[in-house]
Amino acid sequence: MTVTKNLVFYFDYISPYAYLAFHQIYPVAARTGRDVELTPMLFAAALSHWGHKGPAEIPPKRVYTFKDTYRRAANLSIPFSSPPTHPFNPLWALRVTQCLAPHERKPLVEALFASTWGKAERRGIDTREAVEAIAHDIGLDGQALCDQASQPASKARLRESTDAAVDAGVFGVPTIIADGELFWGVDSLPHLEAYLEGRDPLPPRLLAKLASLPASASRKRGGD
Amino acid sequence: MTVTKNLVFYFDYISPYAYLAFHQIYPVAARTGRDVELTPMLFAAALSHWGHKGPAEIPPKRVYTFKDTYRRAANLSIPFSSPPTHPFNPLWALRVTQCLAPHERKPLVEALFASTWGKAERRGIDTREAVEAIAHDIGLDGQALCDQASQPASKARLRESTDAAVDAGVFGVPTIIADGELFWGVDSLPHLEAYLEGRDPLPPRLLAKLASLPASASRKRGGD
Repeated sequence: MTVTKNLVFYFDYISPYAYLAFHQIYPVAARTGRDVELTPMLFAAALSHWGHKGPAEIPPKRVYTFKDTYRRAANLSIPFSSPPTHPFNPLWALRVTQCLAPHERKPLVEALFASTWGKAERRGIDTREAVEAIAHDIGLDGQALCDQASQPASKARLRESTDAAVDAGVFGVPTIIADGELFWGVDSLPHLEAYLEGRDPLPPRLLAKLASLPASASRKRGGD
Repeated sequence: MTVTKNLVFYFDYISPYAYLAFHQIYPVAARTGRDVELTPMLFAAALSHWGHKGPAEIPPKRVYTFKDTYRRAANLSIPFSSPPTHPFNPLWALRVTQCLAPHERKPLVEALFASTWGKAERRGIDTREAVEAIAHDIGLDGQALCDQASQPASKARLRESTDAAVDAGVFGVPTIIADGELFWGVDSLPHLEAYLEGRDPLPPRLLAKLASLPASASRKRGGD
């Protein structure tokens, strides 16, 4: 029996919901006998693929997202502050994270998330210098990691990881894929846990039916 | 002291999250001494305004939305089935609803939502005939309401209601506005209730700060 299969956790540091989910996925994994596979992806590239806008690109949704995640963090007793700037460029942070093997990533991901969303004194993670210093602070060779992250191969790897996420149907972060089933958003974690424990209320025959529901209007007709 | 102020509930029948929230907002209103003001709006028009896509317009998000709302409904013991077709044209249903005074709308809204998302045997609500029959079934003069809904004044009224929602910062449905504060989505109802009871963890000075957080990257820079 395979109870060690990974929960593939797709994230981008840009997302406060990914930060909150990072703090909640490990207890879920522990209770269900799974491992977490931390998988960086560039959220902006997924948005471009789907022709979609991120919460930060719609002014009232941007403000609402900060309020909503602040309230969720407070209710969960997770440290939360808004980053120095947002949106910011997450490429250094994502690429450096991916230079580590998946099972080695957790301390760096935790530190980078904390420097973005968690600490009262945050320096941001949008430059090489910032990422290098954070890696150094937790005992990694930040300079070597950043040198590696600046190579074309590292850039290609993040693109490949993002493309693979999109191919798997990922349209937002955080997304967790468990045994091929996709769970999106921090509020999906209870659904994920029920699924892993065989308590998913959704019967398989309905899954197939929902995937092929016909449409009778597109936006043009609906909005006349 | 004004404890009878309305919770303005913006919805479109197209949204299964609005259906779930409709079933949950009345207990919140009762516990907090408020009234619910059912306010139809055309979600598609708000999407067009913000240049955004609805969940049904991104193929994997469309399927995920049905799964997610099915699971939520099951957990809340709310009857739930997917509609005969989706997306569908909600204009007849929205306009006829708006022909009634706000305090008279609840039985019709309940019946139209049920015919979309709630009943095992659903006939849809995307035609005049369907909406007229549903109104008739609950004792309303469906024919007179549909005649009224087909007038230019009724069409203009739905546009005005939608424009007012967008002007207030509404970017999705369901949205509840309480004392000027916006709450989006069915999972915001606990936050709304905390706010109404004076338990909102978000301090007012932070509300102002979050609204003016600077950006340091737009998508083009973030996705290079």
